[in-house]
Amino acid sequence: MQFASRLDNVETSAIRELFKLLGKPGIISFAGGFPDSAMFDVEGLKEASQKALTEEPGGALQYGATEGYEPLRTQLGAFMKTKGVDVDPSGLIVTTGSQQALDLLGKTMISPGDKVIVEGPTFLATIQCFRLYGAQLISAPIDANGVKTDELEKLIAEHKPRFVYLIPTFGNPSGAMLSLERRKKVLELAVKYQTLIVEDDPYGDLYFGEAPPPSILALSKDVPGSRELLAHCGSLSKVLSPGLRIGWMIAPAELLAKATMCKQFSDAHTSTFSQATAAQYLKSGRMPATLAHVREVYGQRAQAMGAALERELGDAVSFTQPQGGLFFWARLTGANGKLADANELAKRAIEKLVAFVPGAPFFAEKPDVATLRLSFATADVAKIEEGVKRLGQAL
Amino acid sequence: MQFASRLDNVETSAIRELFKLLGKPGIISFAGGFPDSAMFDVEGLKEASQKALTEEPGGALQYGATEGYEPLRTQLGAFMKTKGVDVDPSGLIVTTGSQQALDLLGKTMISPGDKVIVEGPTFLATIQCFRLYGAQLISAPIDANGVKTDELEKLIAEHKPRFVYLIPTFGNPSGAMLSLERRKKVLELAVKYQTLIVEDDPYGDLYFGEAPPPSILALSKDVPGSRELLAHCGSLSKVLSPGLRIGWMIAPAELLAKATMCKQFSDAHTSTFSQATAAQYLKSGRMPATLAHVREVYGQRAQAMGAALERELGDAVSFTQPQGGLFFWARLTGANGKLADANELAKRAIEKLVAFVPGAPFFAEKPDVATLRLSFATADVAKIEEGVKRLGQAL
Repeated sequence: MQFASRLDNVETSAIRELFKLLGKPGIISFAGGFPDSAMFDVEGLKEASQKALTEEPGGALQYGATEGYEPLRTQLGAFMKTKGVDVDPSGLIVTTGSQQALDLLGKTMISPGDKVIVEGPTFLATIQCFRLYGAQLISAPIDANGVKTDELEKLIAEHKPRFVYLIPTFGNPSGAMLSLERRKKVLELAVKYQTLIVEDDPYGDLYFGEAPPPSILALSKDVPGSRELLAHCGSLSKVLSPGLRIGWMIAPAELLAKATMCKQFSDAHTSTFSQATAAQYLKSGRMPATLAHVREVYGQRAQAMGAALERELGDAVSFTQPQGGLFFWARLTGANGKLADANELAKRAIEKLVAFVPGAPFFAEKPDVATLRLSFATADVAKIEEGVKRLGQAL
Repeated sequence: MQFASRLDNVETSAIRELFKLLGKPGIISFAGGFPDSAMFDVEGLKEASQKALTEEPGGALQYGATEGYEPLRTQLGAFMKTKGVDVDPSGLIVTTGSQQALDLLGKTMISPGDKVIVEGPTFLATIQCFRLYGAQLISAPIDANGVKTDELEKLIAEHKPRFVYLIPTFGNPSGAMLSLERRKKVLELAVKYQTLIVEDDPYGDLYFGEAPPPSILALSKDVPGSRELLAHCGSLSKVLSPGLRIGWMIAPAELLAKATMCKQFSDAHTSTFSQATAAQYLKSGRMPATLAHVREVYGQRAQAMGAALERELGDAVSFTQPQGGLFFWARLTGANGKLADANELAKRAIEKLVAFVPGAPFFAEKPDVATLRLSFATADVAKIEEGVKRLGQAL
């Protein structure tokens, strides 16, 4: 069978092979990219879904508008307002998880051969998603404060990309938080080079101490002309439930209209059953307590992992303690002749019954084989300590 | 803002303009393409969703496999078995409505410029979906017995299409039912020309009298080598609830693997909440009664519409009484100097407070402006009779 030429641009993930090994009995996994099922507010979602089916069965079970179920758009508008963003319900569309927002951006914006700038490292499924639309990805370097905006400016000037894709807050895999100063700089670059910026923000609500700087979208009100050059993707997956597949995109009207047309032919609309349930949940007022709970639990786990890494691995790794999100991003230093290849370490770690994801596949260009991603989301503190101890042994 | 070149291949639907007028008070609409909300088994779905959240909250709310939620794949396999198809759960993937199956077929199979044969007329969102991937669509003529297989063979031989897309059973918009003889012929053509056949089957369960012939997929067991050249798309949207967005695709393993990879970067997976609910519903054993109910109600409405059309419009229209599905497909004959342009009739009809969809946009090539589509799904018998009377006045 002959397949479409666009499939030549992607390869099945190397990480998939690793994940097959995770079923090994007794393994402690830091490899996942998902929240802890034990965090889900099952009772709240039960109530919300019953309410949706009782009060609005026609809406929850019938075809709906491609743009999204109106009561959910209203609730999401209100949710964004608590985060400093003024958006009319008509200024956002609901997507089937934020993954679909990426897909719609690819479909709407990327012609084969177009350049797109992403962070190095960035979300693996973004790389593959954009490449399926024929994008040539350019990798902008980051540090603990997110993308280096001076380097980013050079790349924008050189490559004139179709857009720049950033996960500014607790990015996957980097866990990095773009500084306030750099956020402002990104907005200036958008205006200066008239370049669309895509802000992917699934983790912004998951902070452990003080709140991160406002999103790039929230800050755009202070930079004239920048709002019309921003697309912002949000998600309930990390804080409420990924299984609902509820994401959203805020973007200029013209882009939103094209993305809606593409969505119509992608999946017609996002499950109205999920949408009506999410709307009822947000309306119920349980979200603030849910957020407080996940922040506290993940914060403790992040703390425990940071301490364990220092204790067990010492100067063999360097990392920045994440202030939110789900991930540690670490680098093997090779100090004292220790291993500096994360692929090799991953193999040895599996033998010691602990798993993580090597960092190299997260780079669209110039992979750094010394890097690795550790999720602290799904193991409790005791497992985190035991797992990191095993990691030290593997090293 | 500059958009991707693929958007040049589609236009926003002419039908959208019509739909804006449907809000007019007092209008009777035969324009929709959706089932009647009053048919939904709300109680059954309430129970199913509560069971899903009680018995398997982790599964229903967490990320899931891109291929689909295992218990649902098992249930769908069993459902297909009742329809004469032997398929292992691993031989199907769950899609976000069957619209997504079309999208994945486009993404997986169509390179820009590739030819795809569709029926003339065919489902509007199929036309747009495939064109977004750069397909050049070839239109194969149909009659009341579905696609004319002798014409289809000529077109396959001439154009060597990437695949042939058919809605063999009660198609949208045609309502036509491909005869058993022609189904077998399609399978022979698949093997003779080594051409992939896509069988889209959202309406096959919605028959009014005796059951239609087995699906092309079910018949493939009698034609050696044909099963490996078939993709079959199913859906719960028309018989249970479109809002769940549960469709599925059965296809050769190699195609299914590529479609799964594409789905991973499209929406990661279909709502596990919807999937777990659908699985519980199918497991509950309520489906046969639900099917019997929708068949009976829609059957009465189809009967009423056919009688009213004969009574009110006489020889001004020609049509075949549909034996299932949601639609009448009619043609203005122009007899006795009556109007033969369905676009013009649509305008006049709106003035008389009745709406339908002109047929021309459903043709990928050579539109027939005398055709129209009338849905009998959402109006009750009294409304159908009154609406067709108004249609007669408009004519």
